[in-house]
Amino acid sequence: MYHFMDFNMVTDNYTEQPMPNSLHSLRDAIRAFAQAREWQQFHTPKNLVMAMSVEAAELVEHFQWLTPEQSQQLDPAAKEAVAQEIGDVLIYLTRLADVLDIDPLQAAFDKMEINAAKYPVEKSRGHNKKYDQL
Amino acid sequence: MYHFMDFNMVTDNYTEQPMPNSLHSLRDAIRAFAQAREWQQFHTPKNLVMAMSVEAAELVEHFQWLTPEQSQQLDPAAKEAVAQEIGDVLIYLTRLADVLDIDPLQAAFDKMEINAAKYPVEKSRGHNKKYDQL
Amino acid sequence: MYHFMDFNMVTDNYTEQPMPNSLHSLRDAIRAFAQAREWQQFHTPKNLVMAMSVEAAELVEHFQWLTPEQSQQLDPAAKEAVAQEIGDVLIYLTRLADVLDIDPLQAAFDKMEINAAKYPVEKSRGHNKKYDQL
Amino acid sequence: MYHFMDFNMVTDNYTEQPMPNSLHSLRDAIRAFAQAREWQQFHTPKNLVMAMSVEAAELVEHFQWLTPEQSQQLDPAAKEAVAQEIGDVLIYLTRLADVLDIDPLQAAFDKMEINAAKYPVEKSRGHNKKYDQL
Repeated sequence: MYHFMDFNMVTDNYTEQPMPNSLHSLRDAIRAFAQAREWQQFHTPKNLVMAMSVEAAELVEHFQWLTPEQSQQLDPAAKEAVAQEIGDVLIYLTRLADVLDIDPLQAAFDKMEINAAKYPVEKSRGHNKKYDQL
Repeated sequence: MYHFMDFNMVTDNYTEQPMPNSLHSLRDAIRAFAQAREWQQFHTPKNLVMAMSVEAAELVEHFQWLTPEQSQQLDPAAKEAVAQEIGDVLIYLTRLADVLDIDPLQAAFDKMEINAAKYPVEKSRGHNKKYDQL
Repeated sequence: MYHFMDFNMVTDNYTEQPMPNSLHSLRDAIRAFAQAREWQQFHTPKNLVMAMSVEAAELVEHFQWLTPEQSQQLDPAAKEAVAQEIGDVLIYLTRLADVLDIDPLQAAFDKMEINAAKYPVEKSRGHNKKYDQL
Repeated sequence: MYHFMDFNMVTDNYTEQPMPNSLHSLRDAIRAFAQAREWQQFHTPKNLVMAMSVEAAELVEHFQWLTPEQSQQLDPAAKEAVAQEIGDVLIYLTRLADVLDIDPLQAAFDKMEINAAKYPVEKSRGHNKKYDQL
């Protein structure tokens, strides 16, 4: 469990206000983390997108030998490990969006609108065909 | 740009309240989207993690032939295309976390705390060594 | 089906000898292909590994919504599309190994030896535990 | 370095003939390896394509923080680690193709022919535009 004051004391002192529970606060925490370590130099979009894809694959690894049914019933240790990998992907995705000056949540809602047009309910119900085959 | 009422009318009518700007509202929008299309049957964690990794690679594709410097100066068309792919990754990551009953934002903040311990500021400043080589 | 003389005439004339059926001949064909297009400048290991991972994901995409059983029974059109993606991954993997001066087949046999030591038959039989959990 | 007789003695005794230097011999070695461990049950195309993509990402990881120039000048330890990852990708790609009854080398040569038609020399020389933008 994340305790803001612990993190603050142990590491970076990047703010004195408690962080609200949002992607913006995550973005700000990552900015401070990178700045304290002088890592901005490595955080080009090209490098960050590679790092994000590597974290995505580490998440895949937990599921590669599981049946679909097993993937729905992770034991607590596996679930905790998976949660950490989900955290890693979200961290790098948030950082990538930040250095590109893109709002990831807005981008996701915009894409939902596009998806809704590509996959009309009546044509898409109950099967997994790609939009260009509807 | 996402306009909530448009989306609502065109597609799913999943709620009558305006959506707050948060990952929870994105999660709820995806739930409604999947439910309207009866896609829950396809949304096992195993399948979703594969889809998420495919979207991550579509994001990588935009950067594969760019220099690091070029990756920092996307033209507007490329930036819009990249924003859509970031949206796709966030959508599938949010959906994966939802079916696993994991809070992705909490997971990210928890991982930030772990990262802060793995990469102490003094030992990590200005270079890109992995934590086991510090 | 690949017809060597057709390819030769249509495109690159990179050799006058018929190509033996080997990874070395594929490596040479890719070299000639890149050279004819002056693409060596883009073929840094960093760029090629990104391109290879993107092709790997395009292969994944064909399987993401299939059950394990369905993945074993591709129809002819899907099998042909999958074969093309396998070709793409092998092309980029071969090219990456070439610019790094690594023999991919030797690397694979070397890794088989390592895997045999990591996964002794008696301890590994019939389950999918990772080597550090045997 | 791979020594055939060592591998043979230590592990699987799958053949008494020396292995020719080809993808077919790698395919046969992997078949014997999987059979000795009764792993065929896990080797559905869906699972194997996930494992292949994870190995592809482990290869990406070695390059994520390197500049393009640094990626061309790996030190010996990094080169050996990269070679092992290239081996892993080739192993899983070969195994995936085998269970799908696809010849990966033929698929690659067939794809080279398609690529030659998509990227005519005159239109493709010296730039990295995608074929649909030529």
